Amino acid sequence: MNTLAPRAHDHVITAARAFLGERITLNDAIRQQHSRGEDTTPPTMPDAVVFAETTEEVSRLLALCHQHGVPVTPFGAGTSLEGHVNPVRGGISLDLSRMNAIEEVNAADMDCLIGPGVTRQQLNEYLRDQGLFFPVDPGSHCTIGGMCATRASGTNAVRYGTIRENVLGLEVVLADGRVVQTGGRTRKAANGYDLTRLFIGSEGTLGVITRIRLRLHGIPEATSAAVCQFPDLASAVNTVIATMQLGVPVARIELLDEVQMAACIAYSKLEGLAPVPTLFLEFHGTEAGVAEQAESVEALATDHGGSGFAWARDAEARNKLWKARHDAYWAGIAWRPGKRGITTDVCVPISRLAEALLGAKADIEASGFEAPIVGHVGDGNFHTIILVEEGNAEEMERAWALDRQIVRRALALGGTCSGEHGVGLGKREFLREEHGEAALSVMRALKASMDPKGILNPGKMFLDTNT
Amino acid sequence: MNTLAPRAHDHVITAARAFLGERITLNDAIRQQHSRGEDTTPPTMPDAVVFAETTEEVSRLLALCHQHGVPVTPFGAGTSLEGHVNPVRGGISLDLSRMNAIEEVNAADMDCLIGPGVTRQQLNEYLRDQGLFFPVDPGSHCTIGGMCATRASGTNAVRYGTIRENVLGLEVVLADGRVVQTGGRTRKAANGYDLTRLFIGSEGTLGVITRIRLRLHGIPEATSAAVCQFPDLASAVNTVIATMQLGVPVARIELLDEVQMAACIAYSKLEGLAPVPTLFLEFHGTEAGVAEQAESVEALATDHGGSGFAWARDAEARNKLWKARHDAYWAGIAWRPGKRGITTDVCVPISRLAEALLGAKADIEASGFEAPIVGHVGDGNFHTIILVEEGNAEEMERAWALDRQIVRRALALGGTCSGEHGVGLGKREFLREEHGEAALSVMRALKASMDPKGILNPGKMFLDTNT
Repeated sequence: MNTLAPRAHDHVITAARAFLGERITLNDAIRQQHSRGEDTTPPTMPDAVVFAETTEEVSRLLALCHQHGVPVTPFGAGTSLEGHVNPVRGGISLDLSRMNAIEEVNAADMDCLIGPGVTRQQLNEYLRDQGLFFPVDPGSHCTIGGMCATRASGTNAVRYGTIRENVLGLEVVLADGRVVQTGGRTRKAANGYDLTRLFIGSEGTLGVITRIRLRLHGIPEATSAAVCQFPDLASAVNTVIATMQLGVPVARIELLDEVQMAACIAYSKLEGLAPVPTLFLEFHGTEAGVAEQAESVEALATDHGGSGFAWARDAEARNKLWKARHDAYWAGIAWRPGKRGITTDVCVPISRLAEALLGAKADIEASGFEAPIVGHVGDGNFHTIILVEEGNAEEMERAWALDRQIVRRALALGGTCSGEHGVGLGKREFLREEHGEAALSVMRALKASMDPKGILNPGKMFLDTNT
Repeated sequence: MNTLAPRAHDHVITAARAFLGERITLNDAIRQQHSRGEDTTPPTMPDAVVFAETTEEVSRLLALCHQHGVPVTPFGAGTSLEGHVNPVRGGISLDLSRMNAIEEVNAADMDCLIGPGVTRQQLNEYLRDQGLFFPVDPGSHCTIGGMCATRASGTNAVRYGTIRENVLGLEVVLADGRVVQTGGRTRKAANGYDLTRLFIGSEGTLGVITRIRLRLHGIPEATSAAVCQFPDLASAVNTVIATMQLGVPVARIELLDEVQMAACIAYSKLEGLAPVPTLFLEFHGTEAGVAEQAESVEALATDHGGSGFAWARDAEARNKLWKARHDAYWAGIAWRPGKRGITTDVCVPISRLAEALLGAKADIEASGFEAPIVGHVGDGNFHTIILVEEGNAEEMERAWALDRQIVRRALALGGTCSGEHGVGLGKREFLREEHGEAALSVMRALKASMDPKGILNPGKMFLDTNT
């Protein structure tokens, strides 16, 4: 639905063409590409797509849209699973993927300054020679701007934190076109309101991120990865809980259930592994430290009935393993051709993980759906990928009901509706339940204060409102 | 200066007495105790002091003050070094120190729920039997509520992060008395605006913190501490930079210059140490891991001319060492009886630490002041404690000029005016310089949106405004 008055829309496109030239386009195929992410909500077409190349362009465009009340929906790589990039009120889809310069790397301070269109793969490729890496790794080729906007994390968060802990500062264009610098280059600061953290996770509703200063980490002296298989899901989950409670500083500890393993074995041609509940692990440290950590976890896994603690010592075997893990979503989709996935993203306190995860598994079994489970279980975060036939309204409705059931159990266990995918369109209904009316009203007041005309990614995060 | 209309003030006191009884007081000695912190700004008397015991009382009081436009200045232990607790516009000093219950400790999830009046010493005493600890440790007996409000850190931040990284959620009373719950119990979440981080570091200007859910850590299997002395400041600083760049996960790495060491040796009766630039170090991990870390740092220190790498292996020797470090500010003050300290708190990127610190040292020497230097140098953060004769206007003016000189150099090096003490009254003049006009205007807009009448800690953080 396009609620724009035609004149505002036409005026903005004409005026923007003056400084954007061909980089503002009405082309159907391009608008189609910008009509949704990887979610299952219905696509909605933007009126135009802008490929911005500089902060100044973003600033001029936003000033113009603000003046005329035209919606702007930021777009990175289009990998959102919660409908963040769907331009539900039409207007401009603002594609930032071309702002992908790596502007500075300060090896001594372990930080860098990048454009929002840089992907983690691009950055890590660039950094490798300097002995540095950027740890936050969602399972897609997303942009780091999108990761900031959605407060993303990934497999390394258990050790290195989420994007929230790894951003030192941002450049943000506000709704009216003003450009703000937040944060700084120091590791800590007590110097006013934390605007950086306000924009991280704000999903493009408070401003458009145009530059990011990231914290980097040294590539560890030693790395080893391992795979351990379990007779049942409970044993695997309890191994994770014991590992976290013992305080082993694992770099990664990922769980795949038997359905997800079957899908991954087929998709990623994993040899020597059975379709049973499995942990993928990685240890970072000195040679001695890594050996010590691995020994501790192997002992815990054995205690819980784990077997076949297989080591991937060389980089090639490790990369194959983690590529398979990162491709888990795609493996799930490919497992049943023609289906799409509705992905839950609950996160609970680690002590409630077994209850949340086994409860979700029981719900899935009762529902009759196929839904691989995969998770960053060291953080208490897991996903179920409910495989649905898109367009089958009855099936979609039942799948959403299953999704709600899994989320509500997590909320009842002190958890959250989203560990890392964000709210977008898909999780709006849980926000009041999770935070309460007072907190939600503060969020709405912040939105109204910073984007009084509601032009920035309207329709997202909040239900039943025009902002 | 008390800008209250007498009627509003009288009305609020009378109305509050109905539910606070004797816990709202006009007693002179008590008002005097609440007229300043540990800073050197002139004391200002509140009209009344409230000792709150419940969230409901805080909520009722704020609703009343909001209705009548009466200022409220939150007060914890009164250890602020930047004037945060001075009730510069009169009104109510809201003392939260009695809200010091430890309500829950979840050992399995390593979190706890506490009142804002709990001190870190109280909490760690309570946690010890459960093998857990709370790492954030400013050098005073401050409350954890005050630490949240000022985004505090301390000696362990280099390894465990600041208070920002160690708070999972807050309960906050807004200016109008509404009670908000922020965050949650999970380790990560992507579920709406990060209200927790908005309140952390907001210095009581956006709300009053009444409950805190903290992240805890396991007491490490092994701990060892060491002291290493250096022929000059540059060698000590360069050892720190090399240690950080090598990625040794030190738990603490603290620098004391020769003046600070002389003061600490006298105050804390440290034996066997010379008044020369010194590093205090601590290592956490497994037995083997700690030994490995210590070996790496000892080698780096030796390379830089460090000597007398003395080990404090047992808990008693370690405690003595760290007590001396925590008492450094008091040692500095006691060093010249009758003086007070003006404390700088700059933080710079680690690559600029030598320049910032040696520059500050040269400025101090040129000024003729005595000013011990002590710092959390692993984070690039250090303090100079400029010893001044309070009431000597000319001396105070010169001391503030020295403070500004040190701050401006840090800003020029990509640093911040405050690493951990906050803005309060003392650092307001640097906020625009550091963040720029656009970011400052966003901060002001947030303040206006959340506290439209400007009753919450007025006069702090922002210059030349009534909010």
